[in-house]
Parts: sequence; structure tokens; C-alpha cells
Amino acid sequence: MNFCNQCGKPVEFRVPPGDHLPRYVCSHCGTIHYLNPRIIAGCVPDHEGRVLLCRRAIEPRLGFWTFPAGFMENRETVQQAAARESLEEAQAHVQIGSLLAIVHVLEANQVHMFFRAILPRAEFGPSPESLEVGLYAESAIPWGDIAFPSIEFALRHYFADRAAGREDHHFTTAERRPRM
Amino acid sequence: MNFCNQCGKPVEFRVPPGDHLPRYVCSHCGTIHYLNPRIIAGCVPDHEGRVLLCRRAIEPRLGFWTFPAGFMENRETVQQAAARESLEEAQAHVQIGSLLAIVHVLEANQVHMFFRAILPRAEFGPSPESLEVGLYAESAIPWGDIAFPSIEFALRHYFADRAAGREDHHFTTAERRPRM
Repeated sequence: MNFCNQCGKPVEFRVPPGDHLPRYVCSHCGTIHYLNPRIIAGCVPDHEGRVLLCRRAIEPRLGFWTFPAGFMENRETVQQAAARESLEEAQAHVQIGSLLAIVHVLEANQVHMFFRAILPRAEFGPSPESLEVGLYAESAIPWGDIAFPSIEFALRHYFADRAAGREDHHFTTAERRPRM
Repeated sequence: MNFCNQCGKPVEFRVPPGDHLPRYVCSHCGTIHYLNPRIIAGCVPDHEGRVLLCRRAIEPRLGFWTFPAGFMENRETVQQAAARESLEEAQAHVQIGSLLAIVHVLEANQVHMFFRAILPRAEFGPSPESLEVGLYAESAIPWGDIAFPSIEFALRHYFADRAAGREDHHFTTAERRPRM
């Protein structure tokens, strides 16, 4: 951040009075610009035991696999965001279920919130964000080509909980990208 | 938002190519400025059956009651944010427990995430953000003077779950302020 988005003058990076962290501060109009983590919302759509995965058509991690997920927008719930991403990325109409995972990706300033979901009909397709979309049994998941550690974390717990007849939720802190 | 925080030129509010929602877009440098919901993290600190409440020293809702909660910062987990807010607002060192509530406050573009917590020692005090801080039994909660609907929602479920011996988590969409 270089300029104040309110008045257009240059900002300084300093600790405002009464605060404890440096912020981007506009000395001209007094606006303090707070930067906060963003929420990524997603879901694991299940159709008769197989889960919907998308091969990414965009960077980062183009060509790698994920379930539908993306930035939560203003004026929607996390569940609505997860359903919207399924529609946008995979043309899939899902019913959002229980909370599956909350993953902190500290280096990206993101909180990933993932849900279980039902895909009632096996209707889906590619999109500008997905090269291909398909239903995968647990034994067919391309574990070596999953796009992000948070996605793998959620998928692993999804199958483990399903096998155990549970619907728990799981917290962790994960890396932004897989370690090579 | 009036100006681009990257180059300082005026922004336009329009739908970028390939997008479906209007964004603040800089025609000069091409930056798209996304606005996303912010996370409020908080907890219900319990000391031997009584919970820690703070009377707000700042607007909005100055003089009304809340448990410790505030904006999550970058580079911390939601649980770390909740514990930090307890320390800042109430001088209270807490141990964060299970997820209690996730509340969407759509009109404020906020997601409130609240946890159960243990306050091991009855040590706490006021702060620049809290006029007074105290431990309250369920029967002594000032229900008519709770600062925000999300706080009341979480407190109600906290006591109901405790009475039932459960630690569930609860989703809802709430108003920003109590209806008068």
C-alpha cells in the first residue's frame, strides 16, 4: 500500500497512537488502513460416495487438483460462498452440510473454511477456473497432485470421519504450498 | 474507496472482465481492489462456572456488555486472536477451547468466530477498551444490556450447551445491533 484510498495522499507505515501494531496511516486525512485475513470458503461435494474435484485452470497451482473453494465475498454467509464457488468452478449445485475444517494459512493471511456437501445429481462441468471436473472415489484421489496443503488436510479428514461415521471439524495451521 | 492505494489515481466502481461483481478498479495501473468480510474473534472465559464480561469503554455500544472479542490480525490464528483480545480488553490470560459460534453479520461485512475458554485464575481488570470487567453467573448476566446480538447468541448457546454437557458449535446470521 502506497497511497490513501480515501484522499489519495501517500501513506506512512507506523504504529498509530493507542495501537500496538504498525498500520498504513494517512497523515493527511487521518485514515488508518487495517489489513486483516481473508476467508477462503469451500466444500467437499459428495455424490453417492465419490467426491467432486476440479483441476485448476488458473495460477497458482495450475493443473493441480482441488475441491471448489475461493474468496468469500461481502454480503454472503460462508456456506453461501462455498455453494457459489461450486457453481462457478464446477457448474455444480450443492447442498452445504457440516463444518469440516478451518485452516490458517498464516503466510497468505488467509483462513480457509471448508464444509461437507451433498451433490444430489451427477451434473457438473469445467469452467474458466477448472480445466476438468470429475467424481473420485477415495481410492482414486490424486493425492500427489493436490493443489494446496489445506485441501489435502480437509480431504484426509473427510474420508477418515466418513469411515468412522463422524462429522467432526478440524483446525490446523498449514503452509501455502506443498513443500517440494 | 476513492483512490488506488497502489498508484494514487482515482478508482472506478465497475465489473472487471471475467468477474460477476462490481469492484473498485484502477484504470491507470490495473489493480482490482477486492473487499472481503473481516473476522471478529472472541471467547467466553469461564472461571469456576462464572463467565468474564466487559463493559465497553468505546463506541459502538459504549457502556454495554460483551465478552472479549475484536478484529483478527494478520499472522495469527483465530484462537490466538481470541486469546489476545482477552488480554487486551480484560487483562485476562485464557486457555482457548472448542468452537462455540460462527455468526454472519452481513450488513457489517463481518464473520464473528467465538470459542469456549478457561480462565484459570480470577485475575482480570479494566483496560482502555473496558470500563469494568467481572465474573458473572448465568443468573446474573445483564441480558438486557448485552452489546451485540452475536454476543447474546453465543452466550445463550454457551449456557445451554454447558447445562446439557455438550460442546457444539452454532451458526447463525445476526443483526449488527439489537433492534430497539
